[in-house]
This record gives sequence, C-alpha cells and structure tokens, in this order.
Amino acid sequence: MPTVYGDKYSGNCYKIQLLLSHLETEYDWVDIDILAGETRTEPFLAMNSSGRIPLLQLDNGKFLPESNAILNYFAQDTAYLPQDALRRAQVLQWQFFEQYSHEPNIAVARFIAKYQGMPKERQQEYDAKQQGGIKALDVMDKHLSSNTYFVDNTLSIADFSLYAYTHVAHEGGFDLRRFANINAWLERVESHAMHVPMGV
Amino acid sequence: MPTVYGDKYSGNCYKIQLLLSHLETEYDWVDIDILAGETRTEPFLAMNSSGRIPLLQLDNGKFLPESNAILNYFAQDTAYLPQDALRRAQVLQWQFFEQYSHEPNIAVARFIAKYQGMPKERQQEYDAKQQGGIKALDVMDKHLSSNTYFVDNTLSIADFSLYAYTHVAHEGGFDLRRFANINAWLERVESHAMHVPMGV
Repeated sequence: MPTVYGDKYSGNCYKIQLLLSHLETEYDWVDIDILAGETRTEPFLAMNSSGRIPLLQLDNGKFLPESNAILNYFAQDTAYLPQDALRRAQVLQWQFFEQYSHEPNIAVARFIAKYQGMPKERQQEYDAKQQGGIKALDVMDKHLSSNTYFVDNTLSIADFSLYAYTHVAHEGGFDLRRFANINAWLERVESHAMHVPMGV
Repeated sequence: MPTVYGDKYSGNCYKIQLLLSHLETEYDWVDIDILAGETRTEPFLAMNSSGRIPLLQLDNGKFLPESNAILNYFAQDTAYLPQDALRRAQVLQWQFFEQYSHEPNIAVARFIAKYQGMPKERQQEYDAKQQGGIKALDVMDKHLSSNTYFVDNTLSIADFSLYAYTHVAHEGGFDLRRFANINAWLERVESHAMHVPMGV
C-alpha cells in the first residue's frame, strides 16, 4: 500500500487525499508536523532532500515528492487525467499556474496569518501576497466564466490542485465573495459523491 | 507551423527552443519584450490572461501557456519524456521543483541584477533569493552526485527545464564553482549535437 507523508491542513497534501478518495485507492498516512520542524530532520531529508511535503512512498520503497507530480502519477489512465496530448498539457498548464502564481501567494498568506499569527516582520510580504493572490483569482474567475471545470469541462486533477488552497483562501485574508464563477466552481467540485473535506 | 511568443534571453522561453531543436521541429518565433510591457497589453492578455511568456499558439489557433506544460506537449511520445508512469512523474517532480524552488530565486535574482540594474528597493529581496537559490542548487548537486541526468540517467525535458536558468545563474550572482556535479551535468547537456545556446 502506498504511504503519504503529509499534514492534513496543508493544501498541497490535501490534493492527494482528494484524488485518492475519488479513485477509492487505499493508502497509509504519516502525519508530518512542519511547524515542529519534522520536514527538516535528517531522516526526512534522506527521504526528500528538498524537505517538503507531501511525499509519496511507493510499495517498492521509492519516493516521489511534489504534490502535482504525485497527482499525475496516480491519475495516469484514469478519468481525472485526459489521454489527449493537448488536454493533458492544459492540466499541467493549470498545475504550473497553481504552483507559480497561486500557491506562493494564497497558501503563503494563509500560513503567515493562520499558522504564524501574522508576525510584524512578515506584514509587508503578506500585503504583497494579497495583490498576487487576487491576480491569480482573477485569472481563475475569468476562465471559469466560460468553463465548468478547468480543462475540457470535466473534473480533473487540475481542479483538485486549484481547489485545495482556493477553498481556504479566506484564511489567508482573501474575500472570495466577489468571485462568483469561482464560488460556483467550488460548489461543483464539492458536489461529487467522493469529495472529502480538508482535515479528515 | 506552431508559433512561440517569447523572449530569447528568458530561460523559460529558451527551454522551448532547446527541446524544439532536439526534436528538429520547425516553428515561428514572435519576439515579446517584457521590459517594454508587451506581456501586459490588451491583445497579449486576450491570448494569455496570466500575462506571461512563453506562449504557444497551435495550428488550430489554440493557445498553451506555461513553459513546462509546453515542453510536455511537444515531448509526448518522444525520447525526451518517458512513457512509464513513475519516470514521467519524476520528470514532473523536477519541473515543479524548478518552478517553485529554483526559478523564483535564480531567475528573479538574475532579472533584478541583469535587467533592472539592481535597484536599491529590491536589494533585500535579492539577498533572500541568494539563499533560496543556493538551497535549490544544493538539492540539484546532491541528486547529480549519483545520476548523470535528472531522470533515469537519460536526457529529458526535466534537464532542459533546469538547464535553462542554471547555466546563466552567475548572472544572478550565484557562484557555480562549488557545484562540481552541476558543472559536469551542464557540460553533458551541452555535448549533444542538437544543443543550441541561449539567444539564437
């Protein structure tokens, strides 16, 4: 059985839980506490030298880090990753957008506000992340004005990647009320029978 | 023929040139000047609402942004992207590492130093990016201590993604002399007959 090392309130880790629930894939879960420094210990760095979670361990003992790489691994040959080359690349387009333009703003703002209690020395950085996050939400909202899901109007791992931190963006200070298309999409993602909430 | 909108001194755009040279794929190139604001014009934003280059336009008129998504699109069913699910995910692992841990430090430090002439108000940010960049280079150097290329000891798009900004990291203030394994790998990437330098 595969093992996922993660933190249940990290959106990057929650993405994996979302997909594995939809796929009805069983897995072991090992809780890793970032705030307690558990990603910076020698045993953890020996498993993943970049010191990040989630981290997947396969049955053969091999490790795979990076949330979106793990999603692509499990989604291969399932309904959550298209076979067609262009649609597949579009899934990746949104996942790279998520890691470059969305997560570094929205997830980091949430971390500063919720987990670090908004320390004064990070206030300026937090403010800059509000601007970057709103820009990312604008791009998403515009795309969703004419699409029900991110790729091909079908639920895919692109949606799981973007859902993970968007649905808790308010914890990073983002007011989602003005993004009507995003709100409708959040509800669509949540309407699936195999959807699981964060933290379970 | 596909069209690539890009800047020849942007590593993100150069990645595409590297792969298309190896594949001997013909394409049109449209120069986009970021410093002159050409990614923020209305016509450009209509093609790519996130306002970034490179941007690929296919023969059917469709657009695909995000450098690593474009690489995966062209590399499908070629020697530069493995078929095996785990190896494919490992390629993505390094490409997400590149976009999250490498490019935001090394490429942005290079942009601040080389293209913005190191403005005083970005000095603190530049210093932080030195730390983040060295951490990314350490992860790469460690991996390359027992691997000739990033995935499966074979040249793949994971190498093109990481080569693009690593080989010009000195322009962002990084001293590559202490990374012996990275230097040997840079030479291996450059030794291929279809390799092209940046800026052509």
